[in-house]
Amino acid sequence: MVGSCNWRVQYQLGIVPAMKPNVIQWTDTGAVRLLDQTRLPGETTYLEIDEIDQMISAIQALSVRGAPLIGVAAAMGLAAAAHKRESESEADFPAWFDVASTALAAARPTAVNLQWAVDRIRAKVAAEAPSGRRMSEILREEAQEIWDEDARMCAAIGQNGALKVPQGATIMTHCNAGRLATGGIGTALGVIYAAQEAGKDVNVFARETRPLNQGSRLTAWELIESGIPTTVIADSVAGSLMADGKIDMIVVGADRIAANGDVANKIGTYPLAVLADAHSIPFYVAAPVSTFDMSLATGAEIPIELRSPDEMPAAVGARVHNPAFDVTPARLVHAIFTDVGTIEKPSTEAVKEVLGV
Amino acid sequence: MVGSCNWRVQYQLGIVPAMKPNVIQWTDTGAVRLLDQTRLPGETTYLEIDEIDQMISAIQALSVRGAPLIGVAAAMGLAAAAHKRESESEADFPAWFDVASTALAAARPTAVNLQWAVDRIRAKVAAEAPSGRRMSEILREEAQEIWDEDARMCAAIGQNGALKVPQGATIMTHCNAGRLATGGIGTALGVIYAAQEAGKDVNVFARETRPLNQGSRLTAWELIESGIPTTVIADSVAGSLMADGKIDMIVVGADRIAANGDVANKIGTYPLAVLADAHSIPFYVAAPVSTFDMSLATGAEIPIELRSPDEMPAAVGARVHNPAFDVTPARLVHAIFTDVGTIEKPSTEAVKEVLGV
Repeated sequence: MVGSCNWRVQYQLGIVPAMKPNVIQWTDTGAVRLLDQTRLPGETTYLEIDEIDQMISAIQALSVRGAPLIGVAAAMGLAAAAHKRESESEADFPAWFDVASTALAAARPTAVNLQWAVDRIRAKVAAEAPSGRRMSEILREEAQEIWDEDARMCAAIGQNGALKVPQGATIMTHCNAGRLATGGIGTALGVIYAAQEAGKDVNVFARETRPLNQGSRLTAWELIESGIPTTVIADSVAGSLMADGKIDMIVVGADRIAANGDVANKIGTYPLAVLADAHSIPFYVAAPVSTFDMSLATGAEIPIELRSPDEMPAAVGARVHNPAFDVTPARLVHAIFTDVGTIEKPSTEAVKEVLGV
Repeated sequence: MVGSCNWRVQYQLGIVPAMKPNVIQWTDTGAVRLLDQTRLPGETTYLEIDEIDQMISAIQALSVRGAPLIGVAAAMGLAAAAHKRESESEADFPAWFDVASTALAAARPTAVNLQWAVDRIRAKVAAEAPSGRRMSEILREEAQEIWDEDARMCAAIGQNGALKVPQGATIMTHCNAGRLATGGIGTALGVIYAAQEAGKDVNVFARETRPLNQGSRLTAWELIESGIPTTVIADSVAGSLMADGKIDMIVVGADRIAANGDVANKIGTYPLAVLADAHSIPFYVAAPVSTFDMSLATGAEIPIELRSPDEMPAAVGARVHNPAFDVTPARLVHAIFTDVGTIEKPSTEAVKEVLGV
């Protein structure tokens, strides 16, 4: 899905630094090693995965999370599982692959990158099936390419977004759309890293992001690791900070973007966009083209994952309503930074023009 | 500060039910027994207090919280401490009382009811000083009167507010402004209890209220105890619920209200009001007249308490900005329910008219 783009240039400019820590890796035995993000920032522990069921569990438990990284991890998981069952009959591969990839694609419903990555691996398998090459090799190459591309897309998104970051900006973000959410420097945080790289002093307000605290645990951790001054706030503090004139811009990631520019992202993004609008603060979204779902006309069609009540402690007897995402209408989004360019004032026309579809 | 009002009638109508559990009590020895709200809903434990320092600690630790209840507790704490030191020289009383009441009034800066209750006790002491009556008795009577009045004010607020609750309403609230926050049935939750009492089926969305979870811990607990269907949500879920048309009205309490109707309340109230405005949902505030601070022209003058970063877990190295309150401008408030009447479209004129000042 990557169209004409300038990411190769950005990549050569060194915008993709070494990741610290290793969010995702191949092991020597061809398995996938995932940083368990549920344990951060307290513990740096890893999961080693070579079965599809393990990858589905890791995705559902949010051990690996972030729309782009889920896509990368899914592709790598398929390759690792195919490698493990290599000794089995080649004739069994199509049936196994069909069941495994279908189950994997359904692990979480909202982020489209998961479906996108699985579909891409499927297309590769279909195309290469008659070639006689070993399927596990084909899968690994394609998974690696998805990962590499994601890293390059992050760099390009960062470059595009950094142009909108004023010198000395105070930036608010929500959830984690950084190194821990992608195969590269991140989407929303990629913009911040690229601005820093370009010599701009920035400081960040990271919203806690209830109920699972990806902001206070993950975003704060990786920004601090990169030397960016970061202040954690309860999600509810966004309003008074804006009213006090403390925020220059907002940038968030996305889990799925409809053809008209409506954005599904972590629950709390929509109220943040409403607040930004009420205070005339620019509200930006950063996402690779793999996040766009051109089959959906508007955000109303995006399925929203309801997660377990157990994620939200509450008094006995109370129900818990725990949606993982919400939809921000395009009219509240000033621009979407993608790897193929910036979509100003998102609309169906503007999206199609920049994506070249 | 109670003007011409109809609360006696409401009280006689039985709108003030027995509190369960006992949020605050006198002990047989004249001390104050406080339900420790930091332990709810898991544990029902009590603190016994007969020293001013203990009451200050309990208020600062939020063992006792809620603007009206803090006022009641402060008055009772002064009485209990005066009772304990009764054996000491009467001549020492004025110096002790001055120091103790000044320290107590400064325990928390935002809720004005604390200062109001202490000032009222001070005025009583000044008036009764020449009477020859025992000061501890005078203090206890006045503290009891503040408590009783608060219960009656809650009942009257509830009656006034219930008139605005539609049959079958789905109501959203923030923090806890109920039995656990007042000397009676509550302010915001008093409206809900009164609506229930009036035969209206209501159900409630209680926002978690970060960082200390007064919504998921306290509001959910007391509403469930009263048989009101309650759903807990992360603070960030308010936006999408409103966008989906699920919310009929919002009602919250207040910690201080300026002369023009600007409302200081728990952090997160202001963004909730902005969201309500964006979705054309009525946004109501419920508070006794003791919450109004007519010495402040606007909410900009209300001091906002910054609480410890320790309340908000965050990655090492991140700063934490933890204000306990925010200010909602009067223009976002549809009406304020008080014990002396409802202030529609709050403004300096409307406030003065209803309060009769």
